[in-house]
Amino acid sequence: MQLLKDKINKEGVVKKGNVLKVDSFLNHQMDIAFLEEIGKEFKRRFADETITKILTIEASGIGIACITARYFQVPVLFAKKTQTKNIAGEVYTSKVESFTHNKVYDVIVSKQFLTADDRILIIDDFLANGKALIGLSDIVKQAGASLVGAGIVIEKGFQEGGRIIRNMGIRLESLAIVDAMDEKNGCTFRQ
Amino acid sequence: MQLLKDKINKEGVVKKGNVLKVDSFLNHQMDIAFLEEIGKEFKRRFADETITKILTIEASGIGIACITARYFQVPVLFAKKTQTKNIAGEVYTSKVESFTHNKVYDVIVSKQFLTADDRILIIDDFLANGKALIGLSDIVKQAGASLVGAGIVIEKGFQEGGRIIRNMGIRLESLAIVDAMDEKNGCTFRQ
Repeated sequence: MQLLKDKINKEGVVKKGNVLKVDSFLNHQMDIAFLEEIGKEFKRRFADETITKILTIEASGIGIACITARYFQVPVLFAKKTQTKNIAGEVYTSKVESFTHNKVYDVIVSKQFLTADDRILIIDDFLANGKALIGLSDIVKQAGASLVGAGIVIEKGFQEGGRIIRNMGIRLESLAIVDAMDEKNGCTFRQ
Repeated sequence: MQLLKDKINKEGVVKKGNVLKVDSFLNHQMDIAFLEEIGKEFKRRFADETITKILTIEASGIGIACITARYFQVPVLFAKKTQTKNIAGEVYTSKVESFTHNKVYDVIVSKQFLTADDRILIIDDFLANGKALIGLSDIVKQAGASLVGAGIVIEKGFQEGGRIIRNMGIRLESLAIVDAMDEKNGCTFRQ
């Protein structure tokens, strides 16, 4: 998506440790008019699919998912992160390892909002090592729901997440894939 | 807002400890068509004001803020919760005590996205003891920005937050005020 690549080139900041800061428009401050273009693009890419619900994960996926959901006319369900030890039987849960924060947390979704009849599109801001996305797809599987695919705004193509997800047979649509980045030259996008 | 009261009466569940679960439409699963009505109502109530940015706090405020922002045509900025000890000088920070989770966390916002020129509308899902809202208003003050007001979806009128915020001289618009609730009879709304 050229508009997104232009936005990353203009406003994104590459920092040490493979960090790409896009918090001026995507995951701290949110440019709503721009997110509408993101939502339209996801709709265009998944136009051939029947989708009943969008699933995302707190916190930065929520805004993107809500704006995108307008174009699909479906509800959004966001998975919660928790470190609570005892999870009641009313939720689906999956463990996710966060490299950024160096801890393992549980991702939970109430069983009542995810059923075998659902056809799920997962939306998130970033795909790097793929742990969060694998956790969400595991929850979809536990519910017996169908995973239609995953829509990602920015994929870090130099990390393994994209390859793992595609090898799992999941339809993955990343609006921009960054194949390399450095502080001096910025991002190199996959063609 | 009658539509909201009807929705709470129909889908809300009152649980022990003054808990009102509205996670079928507001803060776990999100009914986007319904949130659009919420957004329109906030716009109607603050139609006389110039607003440059909507400020909210992760996680459940984000979706409501993003949908509402469409009607104001402004960006959304969401404050992050962190328990990190050392916060760099690039952020505004305020301490918030959470009774639900029995801990104190820092709420942070990058200085670059909040300036003295901004006219801020705070949006959140719930107002109970008011601690989160006071923290956000403190951050607005640190930035030298103007706080136009706060739009809350559900105010728990039997807790002190609403009174404290109004006594601070902040314009507070709560779309539904619950004055009492119990497991058997549900919610009693303020007229």
